[in-house]
Amino acid sequence: MQNKKTSQKDMLGRSAILPLKVALEKLRQHLDLVAATGEEIVPLEEGLNRFLAQAITAEEDLPPHPRSTMDGFAVKAADSFGAAESRPVYLKISGEVPMGTMPGSGPASLECYKIATGGFLPPGTDAVIMLEHTIEVDSTLIELIKAVSPGENVLAAGDDLQKGDIVLTAGKKLRPQELGLLAGLGYTKIAVHKNIRIGIFSTGDEIVPFQETPGPGKIRDMNGVNLGAMSRQLGASPKYYGIAADVESSFAAVMQEALDENDLVLFSGSSSVGTRDLGEQIIARLAEPGVIVHGVAIKPGKPVIIAFSGNKPIFGLPGHPVSAAVAFDLFVRPAITDLSGQRGQLLPQKRVVQAQLKRNLNSAAGRTDFVRIRLSSSPEAQSYEAHPVLGKSGALSTMVKADGYVIIAENSQGLYEDDTVDVFLFD
Amino acid sequence: MQNKKTSQKDMLGRSAILPLKVALEKLRQHLDLVAATGEEIVPLEEGLNRFLAQAITAEEDLPPHPRSTMDGFAVKAADSFGAAESRPVYLKISGEVPMGTMPGSGPASLECYKIATGGFLPPGTDAVIMLEHTIEVDSTLIELIKAVSPGENVLAAGDDLQKGDIVLTAGKKLRPQELGLLAGLGYTKIAVHKNIRIGIFSTGDEIVPFQETPGPGKIRDMNGVNLGAMSRQLGASPKYYGIAADVESSFAAVMQEALDENDLVLFSGSSSVGTRDLGEQIIARLAEPGVIVHGVAIKPGKPVIIAFSGNKPIFGLPGHPVSAAVAFDLFVRPAITDLSGQRGQLLPQKRVVQAQLKRNLNSAAGRTDFVRIRLSSSPEAQSYEAHPVLGKSGALSTMVKADGYVIIAENSQGLYEDDTVDVFLFD
Repeated sequence: MQNKKTSQKDMLGRSAILPLKVALEKLRQHLDLVAATGEEIVPLEEGLNRFLAQAITAEEDLPPHPRSTMDGFAVKAADSFGAAESRPVYLKISGEVPMGTMPGSGPASLECYKIATGGFLPPGTDAVIMLEHTIEVDSTLIELIKAVSPGENVLAAGDDLQKGDIVLTAGKKLRPQELGLLAGLGYTKIAVHKNIRIGIFSTGDEIVPFQETPGPGKIRDMNGVNLGAMSRQLGASPKYYGIAADVESSFAAVMQEALDENDLVLFSGSSSVGTRDLGEQIIARLAEPGVIVHGVAIKPGKPVIIAFSGNKPIFGLPGHPVSAAVAFDLFVRPAITDLSGQRGQLLPQKRVVQAQLKRNLNSAAGRTDFVRIRLSSSPEAQSYEAHPVLGKSGALSTMVKADGYVIIAENSQGLYEDDTVDVFLFD
Repeated sequence: MQNKKTSQKDMLGRSAILPLKVALEKLRQHLDLVAATGEEIVPLEEGLNRFLAQAITAEEDLPPHPRSTMDGFAVKAADSFGAAESRPVYLKISGEVPMGTMPGSGPASLECYKIATGGFLPPGTDAVIMLEHTIEVDSTLIELIKAVSPGENVLAAGDDLQKGDIVLTAGKKLRPQELGLLAGLGYTKIAVHKNIRIGIFSTGDEIVPFQETPGPGKIRDMNGVNLGAMSRQLGASPKYYGIAADVESSFAAVMQEALDENDLVLFSGSSSVGTRDLGEQIIARLAEPGVIVHGVAIKPGKPVIIAFSGNKPIFGLPGHPVSAAVAFDLFVRPAITDLSGQRGQLLPQKRVVQAQLKRNLNSAAGRTDFVRIRLSSSPEAQSYEAHPVLGKSGALSTMVKADGYVIIAENSQGLYEDDTVDVFLFD
């Protein structure tokens, strides 16, 4: 009994707990070996926020022919050279380009065609003079007092894209503009990475499904819904496997089923030593490499387990909902990003605002702290005020009151009132 | 003929074009009269990113009873008072709290119960001593050398929420943590605002559906897909009505159908004077107040129409895809936010990063410019470099190359190389 307790203390004591940077590096090394999910074909309109499985090359020029970007007159630019107020140039209006047609012939020398924005340039013309820059002498003649350059007010053939250009690289997240451009190129279907399947279960004998009325000593499961929604927010498809009892047979069976059916598994446990050990023991019997991180020097979120069964990541998150959410953001988010086919992300995945801290925050050295923040707007300045939401990590209401969090770095003793801090906003 | 042209010039000339600030104020005044969409009941798990239709009040304390936040021993704090290394206190381990049960009785004076994280405190106890802060004399006795305060390592009843508390206000966007908390309170269904229905159509005789191969003089519609995806990104439900021909009967019929079936209508037109006028004429025949803005001093996006038919907003967006996207972001986004039931938004709806501008950007005074930006990461510093993506507003590929945009204010003549600028990231 005493021996067992001692070994538990070692396993969970300071010696086994890794600094955040080291834990993230270990996770990164293993994620680099994991392939993105396979591909599937979806209709273009359903491609929003999916990740391209293959690069897209332009098969034609866009636009296919030069188009006007203004309402005015299509001309040979050379005809306008030398035009000035003291020496106007006169051009005869000898035709008009109807919208949606490809003009078969163009104006002769010192002639022009009327053209609307979006119209295709007639043969022989290379510029458009804006309506506002002309004086109509009569309905058949215009006067110019300023020259235009070749290409002025014209979107040349291939100006948007040239045939053979790589339009989009593999792994690219499809925003609205990517879908618009693909529509312009005539794509009606696209190959994207399959949505990541995430198996989620909760553990702990005190937990009941949230649909039930908890009996004495029980509370409703909050993590199933919370972690499912966080997964969905990142484009993954969560499946909930319910609550595994704190006994080996039940826990192991749910783990195996979730692993078999998904690309990634999340479980959240009551943060008690017993449950944590059970999770670790069960993972130890799965495929190599097993547990790679058990405990990280962060607050909240310390008792996190990071493991791999073969190439499938498994995350054991703390039972406290706030701790689970912080650990998800730090460790599960990059795993989802990698499995989606996005590597080497440049941009911050969270919105950040700068704000003035409204009270001192202490932090233990050697630990990275994540402090929930409620923002308010300062009346005198166009700036935000950051109010720490203090409360225990079991209290999910603190997350609801919060707009985001500040990070107190491992080597910092804390932050001071009136410091300008970066607040990372929740999605 | 000459007369007609003159009146068009007046309507679209400088006099009719509003500064951005004025256009936004006019939009705001009219939006303030528009009610949010009605409500519907959805299962909790489908509530992500929806907007609460009614405030939520806690009907019970959360947690219902005090719980331990650590593994250790439940004690009466008073028993530990005065404990010090020179004067240890000894407590007898007289019981244990099994997880998921409500202990019926508690330890006597100078006794304690073993308890795991999440366990409910036994009657008579008011604090938990962490395992790591005790010395086990044997399996029935622990030694304390430091006192605990009442409430230490305990989440008290109602610490998360107290019965009667307003947990969430009406209009609140449901993030994962709100759903988690609602699960904890036993909500299985919630009342949310209905998704905003947005009717979208394109105009212009040169436009063909993107599924078709364009004949001579035609190009594929990009705006239908692009604006639909932008709407969906903000939680709205877009419906596409195809391409209306540039003739009054066709345009008016599509407009009426889209208005009847939706909460908001978007059309994008070829930016030619003729089509713009047709849009304005048709809106003039709908319910009051009709067109409130026609032309805004922004680049790109200038020829935007903002109108209301009764309480339904109608936006006529430029035909150039980049201009349409900028105008959507500026004018349609706040309309969607308001109709969703969110008023008085505090937080920025876009992610912002600061970056160092890599070249001078000129801008005409009296006009607000939106310049697309590609970001790169500077090798020497932990900062971003902002590269303007220059290109005509007809070229959607410039949006695809861009990560976001910088804004050059109306009263600014431009920005200089090496200026630190805010880059608003695309969603």
